[in-house]
Amino acid sequence: MCLPACVAQLASRRSFLRKAGAVTVATAAAPLGAQKQPEQAKRFSFQRTVDLTHTLGPHFPFPVDHAFSLERISTRPKDMWNINRWHFHEHIGTHIDAPFHCSDGDTADRIPAEKLVGPLAVIDIRDRAAGNSDAELTPDDLKAWERRHGPIPAGAVVAMCSGWDARVNDANQFFGRDARGGFHTPGFHVEAVQFLAQERSVIGIATDTISLDPGNTGSFPVHHFWLGQNKWGLENVANLGQLPPSGAMIVVGAPKVAGATGGPSRLLALMGEEQK
Amino acid sequence: MCLPACVAQLASRRSFLRKAGAVTVATAAAPLGAQKQPEQAKRFSFQRTVDLTHTLGPHFPFPVDHAFSLERISTRPKDMWNINRWHFHEHIGTHIDAPFHCSDGDTADRIPAEKLVGPLAVIDIRDRAAGNSDAELTPDDLKAWERRHGPIPAGAVVAMCSGWDARVNDANQFFGRDARGGFHTPGFHVEAVQFLAQERSVIGIATDTISLDPGNTGSFPVHHFWLGQNKWGLENVANLGQLPPSGAMIVVGAPKVAGATGGPSRLLALMGEEQK
Repeated sequence: MCLPACVAQLASRRSFLRKAGAVTVATAAAPLGAQKQPEQAKRFSFQRTVDLTHTLGPHFPFPVDHAFSLERISTRPKDMWNINRWHFHEHIGTHIDAPFHCSDGDTADRIPAEKLVGPLAVIDIRDRAAGNSDAELTPDDLKAWERRHGPIPAGAVVAMCSGWDARVNDANQFFGRDARGGFHTPGFHVEAVQFLAQERSVIGIATDTISLDPGNTGSFPVHHFWLGQNKWGLENVANLGQLPPSGAMIVVGAPKVAGATGGPSRLLALMGEEQK
Repeated sequence: MCLPACVAQLASRRSFLRKAGAVTVATAAAPLGAQKQPEQAKRFSFQRTVDLTHTLGPHFPFPVDHAFSLERISTRPKDMWNINRWHFHEHIGTHIDAPFHCSDGDTADRIPAEKLVGPLAVIDIRDRAAGNSDAELTPDDLKAWERRHGPIPAGAVVAMCSGWDARVNDANQFFGRDARGGFHTPGFHVEAVQFLAQERSVIGIATDTISLDPGNTGSFPVHHFWLGQNKWGLENVANLGQLPPSGAMIVVGAPKVAGATGGPSRLLALMGEEQK
């Protein structure tokens, strides 16, 4: 997560970053199959890659200042290479919360690779969230999805699609700021993630908002329960609305940084040929 | 890349980082199929994920000092969360070289998502590299691979497997240091990447060494030619020796950081059920 309680201790060094990252969506057909291919290469042909990642830069909405900077340390043609150094907060941009962010569980580098790939169940609450910035994804939403699409598969990632990614160009809109500066963003209800932990076998959850918890929840029950199960969460996910409710596979390019509590991640959704 | 010419201008602030990153290999079966699944979820079932990423930390071999640090800015239980800030050089660890690293081509964030996923052609030169740290992957190696496995498929990533990832715990071994401090690491011959650019339709190349070019090549012809084609390269790749020559798909979790010349990336290889 990164709502104010997460970064309050840093506020003196930071301020709002008001502009937002550009969103790139890859919809072109993958070029596989354009020539004769060995049999093995065909096995993984797929039709489409959807980028679930916002572009990260100093403009990305974040509650405190100086959360991201690029330091150019070499520039062509004066130097042979263009090179930057990165300086940033682990929980900015489209990113993963590792269990260690608020538990004694795995740091980002210790999440097993096979726990970073799985079928994606997209729970669409856009209609409800459009009229209520405090909307929550509940167990009833999960059960309604299952009535249509079958049981949430083992090894799945369950994503809340609230439509919040469209607000990323305006920090106040993205945070759902009220007159007192409070946050109002949709999130998971703790009973929904308890259901997923206890009744289903899910590797991670994802949201297109800045926090797994609803923004108006000061105690962060979803973070504490879910990460406390040694499971991970994704925040600030882009383009979930472009995916079908079922049928995509997500590959989570989580940083393999020793000791990281999470970090910016490249999220790619693969769409099979069956999606034609 | 990051050989000395790439970082020489920074040498005054840096020194060797001698220890190496732990390598995690995920070989467990993905848990898909453990219960009744909706039809759509089955489409992407796969047997195995192989992690092609070294763990990144302050120990990772790099030619100059202070290339990586984690700054802990919040710690449980004193604070509610564990959080770090990252400070690092873009070309450390398992990482991507974006075209912009040494051309006017795409920065990392502008590489289209569909150009980050493709079948992986692994060219094994371990036998030759074991006796010659200056070994090169040549057009003949590519043609020998094609005689066995068919044409390199369109949209593929071509990876050089020299066995160098096993040296990552010793910087001098990893860099192939000679008595004068010179570097000796296997790499692509420029004619091999010219063949790939002109005769095949390949999205990227990859190496398990620190540089796409052989370490003893001061002019970096592969970097300049290949990145100049607006194509990307992966360096310090792990575990290529665990993959078949053909049949794996690579998903490149490249950082979507605005203006980045590259950056640490999570590389995952997916192995289909047909690989049983």
